[in-house]
Amino acid sequence: MSEHFVPTSIDQIEVDNARLYETAQQVGIDVYQDRVKNQTPHCLFGEKGVCCHICSMGPCRITPKAPKGICGADAHAIAGRNYLRMAAGGAATHSDHGRECVWKLYDSSEDGYYHVTDSKKLLNLAAEWGVETEGRDIYDVAHEVAEIGLNEYGKIKGYQRWTERGTEERIKTWTENGVRPRAVDREVVTAMHMTHMGNTADAEALVKQALRTGMADGWGGSMAGTEMSDILYGTPMPNESESGLGVLEKDYVNVICHGHDPAVSEMIVRYSEDPEMIKYARSFGAKGINVAGLCCTGNEMIMRHGIKVAGNFLQQENALLTGVVEAIVVDVQCIFPNIGPLAECFHTKFYTTSPIARIPKSEYLELTSENAGEVAKKILMTACENFPNRDESKIFLPEQKRKSWAGYSCEGIKSRLDTVTNSHLDEIDTYKPLIECVRSGVIRGAVAIVGCNNPKVRPEQSHWEIIRKLLENDIIVVATGCAAQVAAKAGFMDKAAKEVCGEGLRRVCTLADIPPVLHMGSCVDISRMMLLVTGIAKDWGIETYELPVVGCAPEWMSEKAVSIANYVVATGIDTYLGIEPQVNGSDQMVELITEGTRKWVNAGYIINTDPDELVKAMIDGIEAKRAALGI
Amino acid sequence: MSEHFVPTSIDQIEVDNARLYETAQQVGIDVYQDRVKNQTPHCLFGEKGVCCHICSMGPCRITPKAPKGICGADAHAIAGRNYLRMAAGGAATHSDHGRECVWKLYDSSEDGYYHVTDSKKLLNLAAEWGVETEGRDIYDVAHEVAEIGLNEYGKIKGYQRWTERGTEERIKTWTENGVRPRAVDREVVTAMHMTHMGNTADAEALVKQALRTGMADGWGGSMAGTEMSDILYGTPMPNESESGLGVLEKDYVNVICHGHDPAVSEMIVRYSEDPEMIKYARSFGAKGINVAGLCCTGNEMIMRHGIKVAGNFLQQENALLTGVVEAIVVDVQCIFPNIGPLAECFHTKFYTTSPIARIPKSEYLELTSENAGEVAKKILMTACENFPNRDESKIFLPEQKRKSWAGYSCEGIKSRLDTVTNSHLDEIDTYKPLIECVRSGVIRGAVAIVGCNNPKVRPEQSHWEIIRKLLENDIIVVATGCAAQVAAKAGFMDKAAKEVCGEGLRRVCTLADIPPVLHMGSCVDISRMMLLVTGIAKDWGIETYELPVVGCAPEWMSEKAVSIANYVVATGIDTYLGIEPQVNGSDQMVELITEGTRKWVNAGYIINTDPDELVKAMIDGIEAKRAALGI
Repeated sequence: MSEHFVPTSIDQIEVDNARLYETAQQVGIDVYQDRVKNQTPHCLFGEKGVCCHICSMGPCRITPKAPKGICGADAHAIAGRNYLRMAAGGAATHSDHGRECVWKLYDSSEDGYYHVTDSKKLLNLAAEWGVETEGRDIYDVAHEVAEIGLNEYGKIKGYQRWTERGTEERIKTWTENGVRPRAVDREVVTAMHMTHMGNTADAEALVKQALRTGMADGWGGSMAGTEMSDILYGTPMPNESESGLGVLEKDYVNVICHGHDPAVSEMIVRYSEDPEMIKYARSFGAKGINVAGLCCTGNEMIMRHGIKVAGNFLQQENALLTGVVEAIVVDVQCIFPNIGPLAECFHTKFYTTSPIARIPKSEYLELTSENAGEVAKKILMTACENFPNRDESKIFLPEQKRKSWAGYSCEGIKSRLDTVTNSHLDEIDTYKPLIECVRSGVIRGAVAIVGCNNPKVRPEQSHWEIIRKLLENDIIVVATGCAAQVAAKAGFMDKAAKEVCGEGLRRVCTLADIPPVLHMGSCVDISRMMLLVTGIAKDWGIETYELPVVGCAPEWMSEKAVSIANYVVATGIDTYLGIEPQVNGSDQMVELITEGTRKWVNAGYIINTDPDELVKAMIDGIEAKRAALGI
Repeated sequence: MSEHFVPTSIDQIEVDNARLYETAQQVGIDVYQDRVKNQTPHCLFGEKGVCCHICSMGPCRITPKAPKGICGADAHAIAGRNYLRMAAGGAATHSDHGRECVWKLYDSSEDGYYHVTDSKKLLNLAAEWGVETEGRDIYDVAHEVAEIGLNEYGKIKGYQRWTERGTEERIKTWTENGVRPRAVDREVVTAMHMTHMGNTADAEALVKQALRTGMADGWGGSMAGTEMSDILYGTPMPNESESGLGVLEKDYVNVICHGHDPAVSEMIVRYSEDPEMIKYARSFGAKGINVAGLCCTGNEMIMRHGIKVAGNFLQQENALLTGVVEAIVVDVQCIFPNIGPLAECFHTKFYTTSPIARIPKSEYLELTSENAGEVAKKILMTACENFPNRDESKIFLPEQKRKSWAGYSCEGIKSRLDTVTNSHLDEIDTYKPLIECVRSGVIRGAVAIVGCNNPKVRPEQSHWEIIRKLLENDIIVVATGCAAQVAAKAGFMDKAAKEVCGEGLRRVCTLADIPPVLHMGSCVDISRMMLLVTGIAKDWGIETYELPVVGCAPEWMSEKAVSIANYVVATGIDTYLGIEPQVNGSDQMVELITEGTRKWVNAGYIINTDPDELVKAMIDGIEAKRAALGI
């Protein structure tokens, strides 16, 4: 059986990582593995959330002998404030990325760099928001929709407009329990104000505001980011690509796009395909230009264009250590400041493009709606010119890569479901075939695997183990962010991966012609997952919290993940975490985030740092939901 | 010379504090002095700003052996991010207080609880903003002005409207150097985004955004807070009152208002004067109701109504330890969570009123525009009913209090200047008489003493020493916040305090009939100081940064102070700090905040923890500005 599917193991991936680590030592640069060693053990006060640094009377640290900070704040207040500040940092970050996407739509024009690509999606949104479309120029519609979208960040009154997409039950729940967000920016400011010295010390109020702040992200800024990106750059539909460091090509000019906001990478992709640019690359001895993605910018590119993904968050240094990267261009978020000194050890050019992410030892080319194409061309040309500057003695190019399918937006998923024979159903554009599979037990349920890498555990291992176990148990997986990239490079996004699935899921994969792990996009695209569960609940006629669906972030790392976890829970979806939120110094906080939120939004966290136990808990959770539904 | 003026010394004040500390021990409650002992020494990583806690890979700490966090962020990036986050926390906090003031104007009506009191100020602002006033109902004007004011928090485009009040030179400087703020909330979100994991690691960019974020406060949210409060509750004019714990009265129902936003205290003051309420107090054996202020709510009340001030930030526990407080009602900010358990040791009722400041062991009565009077009445009635519940064995009422003048808004200062004989000037409503005094050298310059108490130093001592020294050197002092209250209770806001001044300042105090330290209000009222220096610069015909005027925060503590320091510096005013900003682990950051900002905004920090050296530096700084002006 030469074609028998075997996923790439973490052990195998780590062989290449180890070889690249040798290069780091050879060129004399530290990489994250070194820094983890230097920073371990971590400060326990910080890890437990009981270090308070919000005023200059401190910092204060809670111990049995010092149970209060100087102001009198106890462990619950301190851990609660830190937790809410993390949610606020994450919501601000995601949402501000979303805002930039809305601005690009606002700036879009027929003859500019940014265009309306999915006009159907724009017209649907216009209809949803009551914007006149009849007989109007598509760009007039775009600009009016964008202005409404921008206003959602700072409007004086009213709830966040995107929340109107929720189920009737959720809207009522959010409104009655005080977690329905107002303007996006206002929720961040409210969170910052509540956590300022001398304000809220009640952990329950802090947790509730964390939910509302997260909601401003997932049902606000992130959703804006996803929708506007789809309108501008096209709604993702299933397509085949490859993932793994092996996507870098020895004979090509390699340009890596890293970060989150596709505004830069879209231009890089566009101009890298320009015959003139390819000719320019060839003039320096290369066969052409190979654009590859890293982190969520990589997800944006693979989702829409099938651009190959070199790696996720913890592969960013490894990608450069291959010695074959002519340029790395970054937009915002999750960019190691170490990219600066690391790039200097090679011929690699490092470009920053956003005022939000100014990083030493980079060349700063601020990208705007007006100069976007010029910036992209300049970067590509410099990369081409840089091709002859490689140092052969520093090159090691891993070969590992896997076929991976991506592009499973809600529309992409429905497009697959539409192909499934449903003799008893005439409808198309519905989740009903999927619901039928779940109701009948052919699929037991679904898990959204999301989030980052985190070296507090063996990176990627828990993602891998959890995904494998879920597939075996006939649980379909949807994935975003760095988690999706683990699945991709392991091969779980290859359609052949159905072979590792249980019998039911395997049959569904065959019928719908899908891989068992569906790539839904970047971390802002967890908003797609919210719309997916909402759509399924509506089509099924039950509530979101009744669905046999859970979320899981096995290796979450950033504040964005805290914000995400809050809005997923607020949407009624239990969320399983493999890294402990930094609140363990407060029993009240632990109780609130695992159980306390349930009385408001019918969901909470389940936390377990053992992947085997975590996945078992997930399966049990899904089966319990099924039992409650009587299916 | 029985009338010879002697200020109350910190030694004297500390005698009462020590006696009240005995009460704390008697009733078995910890107070800040105990907690300071428990929390000392502080974590050096935190104090130096090189502890990073913005993602869950960490926390990371910079040492010589571990010069980078796990992501690669170095000491400069980490200290810079922490610093910007403090500015963001402060700007969010001040500005959100300001927003609530604008909302109260928006909700104001003839027959509601909130009214337009200073219609002249409203009409001036309406004219400034191009709002039609002719023939319109004053409340229609108020609502339109308020809507514009609210929109400054979240508008999509354009610079902060309040910045148009700057000098021509400042507006140009702010705009050209990227520190002119946009919508208030957006600057906070931008700051949070820039400091998220994987974004800005360049200290210079972080410091610049700190300036812009601070500007969104001082020339945005705080200015809104001050202006709207003046319109609603009256623009402060000079009035006489008293300050010190001795303002609490043994035979009266004592109600303390604590926090910052005057929306609650205004109602308490109003209904405490109701004859029916006074009768109610008497029915429980009291002689009447004594409302006293704490912290900035106290400043708001003394500025407008001459309400006596019991104490500042670090006196909040002492006030309750007197055993004679029937109720403490708080709004937002700087409220020790320890007030909860402390109040329980006495008969004292503890009321919280804002969703921003939910505090355990308090009774929560959320105050809205609709129920404000009812909430105030309920609190006052309960306080009256509580009068018989005092425990005589726990009472110790300090006698110390000093006569203190307050109410020196810009309008209040001009009203005093108008009274000064100016045979060569016909103009009124101008700072020219003051400018003449400074030009001639009768007064050498002015210092704004602002900010908090901080037990990292001997509380209040440095305020006291610095003020005394400045007055001796013919430097007039304007003060706000907790700093103002040190001056007040020491007696420096008594007109008799001119006796400790140099000859020139003494003469000015006599002529203008003012104390040598002018109380300008609460911490949001530092916006008044910005308008003062702007007005003086305009009337003088020089730039703000040329004025022999500096700012000083001897004991700053909160994030708000970081925001303030940033906008004061951005306004071109050197700022002298007696507590080190938590950035000492980064030489780049130290250089940037002391020198680096000068190239953008012509001002920076001067940091010295020795009050004698700090005041000497200030005097030298003022004399250098004079020399540069050739005066």
